[in-house]
Amino acid sequence: MLDFTFHMPTRIIFGAGRLAELGRTRLPGRKALVVISAGGSMRRTGHLDKVLALLAQNGCATVIFEKIQPNPVLIHVDEGAALARAEGCDFVLGLGGGSTIDSAKSIALATANPGSYWDYIQSGTGGRKRPERPALPVVAIPTTAGTGTEADPWTVITREDTNEKIGWGDDSTYPALSIVDPMLMVSVPPAVTAMTGMDAFFHAAEAYLSTARQPSSDLLALEAVSLISQFLPQAVKDGNSVQVRTMLAWASTAAGLCESLSSCISHHSLEHALSAHHPALPHGAGLVMLSLPYFEVMARFQPKRCADLAVTMGEDIEGMELREQGLALVTALRKLIAAVGLDGLKMSDYGVTREEIPALARNARETMGGLFAVTPVDLREDAVIAIFEKAYR
Amino acid sequence: MLDFTFHMPTRIIFGAGRLAELGRTRLPGRKALVVISAGGSMRRTGHLDKVLALLAQNGCATVIFEKIQPNPVLIHVDEGAALARAEGCDFVLGLGGGSTIDSAKSIALATANPGSYWDYIQSGTGGRKRPERPALPVVAIPTTAGTGTEADPWTVITREDTNEKIGWGDDSTYPALSIVDPMLMVSVPPAVTAMTGMDAFFHAAEAYLSTARQPSSDLLALEAVSLISQFLPQAVKDGNSVQVRTMLAWASTAAGLCESLSSCISHHSLEHALSAHHPALPHGAGLVMLSLPYFEVMARFQPKRCADLAVTMGEDIEGMELREQGLALVTALRKLIAAVGLDGLKMSDYGVTREEIPALARNARETMGGLFAVTPVDLREDAVIAIFEKAYR
Repeated sequence: MLDFTFHMPTRIIFGAGRLAELGRTRLPGRKALVVISAGGSMRRTGHLDKVLALLAQNGCATVIFEKIQPNPVLIHVDEGAALARAEGCDFVLGLGGGSTIDSAKSIALATANPGSYWDYIQSGTGGRKRPERPALPVVAIPTTAGTGTEADPWTVITREDTNEKIGWGDDSTYPALSIVDPMLMVSVPPAVTAMTGMDAFFHAAEAYLSTARQPSSDLLALEAVSLISQFLPQAVKDGNSVQVRTMLAWASTAAGLCESLSSCISHHSLEHALSAHHPALPHGAGLVMLSLPYFEVMARFQPKRCADLAVTMGEDIEGMELREQGLALVTALRKLIAAVGLDGLKMSDYGVTREEIPALARNARETMGGLFAVTPVDLREDAVIAIFEKAYR
Repeated sequence: MLDFTFHMPTRIIFGAGRLAELGRTRLPGRKALVVISAGGSMRRTGHLDKVLALLAQNGCATVIFEKIQPNPVLIHVDEGAALARAEGCDFVLGLGGGSTIDSAKSIALATANPGSYWDYIQSGTGGRKRPERPALPVVAIPTTAGTGTEADPWTVITREDTNEKIGWGDDSTYPALSIVDPMLMVSVPPAVTAMTGMDAFFHAAEAYLSTARQPSSDLLALEAVSLISQFLPQAVKDGNSVQVRTMLAWASTAAGLCESLSSCISHHSLEHALSAHHPALPHGAGLVMLSLPYFEVMARFQPKRCADLAVTMGEDIEGMELREQGLALVTALRKLIAAVGLDGLKMSDYGVTREEIPALARNARETMGGLFAVTPVDLREDAVIAIFEKAYR
């Protein structure tokens, strides 16, 4: 019988040009820690200056924290929190991709609570403490269409010395406000567009398969899968269309809503193990490399749901047997990966060795075991190892 | 270009038997004003006792306010607020149909602010003041599948001495928590099932036509229209199936989400005028009586969107011209109204006279003019009068 909890309290302002509303909308505080990446792209694109000017216009003081790297790490979360505390910031604004916004969420939690952020992590070597206070309010301004973190409470941080990449989130880490302005995404280069877009694709596809799904997440997942299949190849070819960027921004946010209303499944656990051990590996690339063998297993055990996804991606499954219908998802996925130029990705190019695979399989379950519990197939360790082996090139 | 705001912060616990969670979930206060209808059905069904026991189990004190009537009125809102203030209640729980939950929202606002509730109404004879403080937190426990008020901030209250039925809502009148338990709906009699179900239908259909629509509301609206078309006739015939009640409860909540993410259109304004002048007229009945001529106008100007709704309701529109495709919605609606046994409704049976019509048309715009602004057709007063005339029997 139908049974679910619906909760996603973030106010999402969506649309081309709507960043301007940051200058007049009600903010959740008076002094923001503005979190950006260390790479300098927020300065080069002018996004940072624009955001700072809008915050000033809204009577808000700012402190910049500019240290976040792809696959963001614990030390920068604790450092950001120390800065926010010392400066008396009362909210945290993340401007950038998923790494930056996730860091903003984790800094917001760590600022409001004693000790290290890792004290509050609930798996692996985490301290398993319950936070004493809610996170400071978070404002999310994504500049890529992929993470969906603007529409969910989740944040993923890596502890480098133990190779653990672990997610966390509670009611207080839903952004209070997210502004999704596709104009900020026009300058994203093709490879990043492809990888972040595929990340969003997997959020939606996994949420559609997850046992935590509900009717709203099903509707949004199919919407996101349809839009990404249609528009991601176009955006990779030519990133300048605001119309195409808008469709992908909405797809990414819809997939983010799915992460709040349903959840990712163990495909994400496997990838986290991979990029925890190899921080230079982009999350979207890791997902793509694992996806064909992973979804082949899903198709075998969940053919109907996988067939729905295949049809949504434009596959014609008429006349096929059920087993083939499910596998049509793998066909569709292979075509999409090629269409966005990611069919040449190899784990070995990122330094992954075949010998690591058993350790990666163990890490996936130890650090992100929760996602195995909502995976519709009971994936034992040998099955996980088999997926890694099959994906390895 | 796609442009919207997504915001619906209520936590909705949905599913048969999940009322039990009221006994252990975190409540937004320690002492509840429990608002129920004057009719006694919450006592007869045992729902009140169950809710009181669960609140006690959760360590929560309660005060009962048992005065709400269908088409709830201002004096009971002000009276409930006075009681909540005198008793020191820190949240308001509405248990019942839309009248009760709407009253709970309005009482929650009036309790937290000086003067009468009507001081804060923004149209008609309302005082047009801005509330000084947010409403007390609201918990909504619907016992009918229709209003959707568990998933939106809106409350509609009638001022009797001026015949005004006016909506209100802000961020603070979204319920903090809604528990939608279809088990509470099994005992709803057929006529109420039909009328409340049609109310939900119109929330969804109107949200699909509204210029305030967004992709999420489109998806949820079609879901609700599809489920209601399929299951409402069954529930009217035999209300005992928990499975059928569950589908309708979800349809109603989905339509409520649409009222948050999109909005109703002027069909609701016309009905409010009708039941403001004739408080014995149930809201769902008023909507049904107005709907065929109203949607005929919509079909003429919005044939594509109306055709989408018709197809969702099971109409075959292949080979039709666009104009006919739109009008297929009116055909589908006529069939649905007959299937749920409401095709015999007559305004004259509720004391409405043909002479009143110009006054009703004026009232609709004066009290609920906002919904005309999001109606996709520019409906002048003579067009509104023509709809009333055509609907009159």
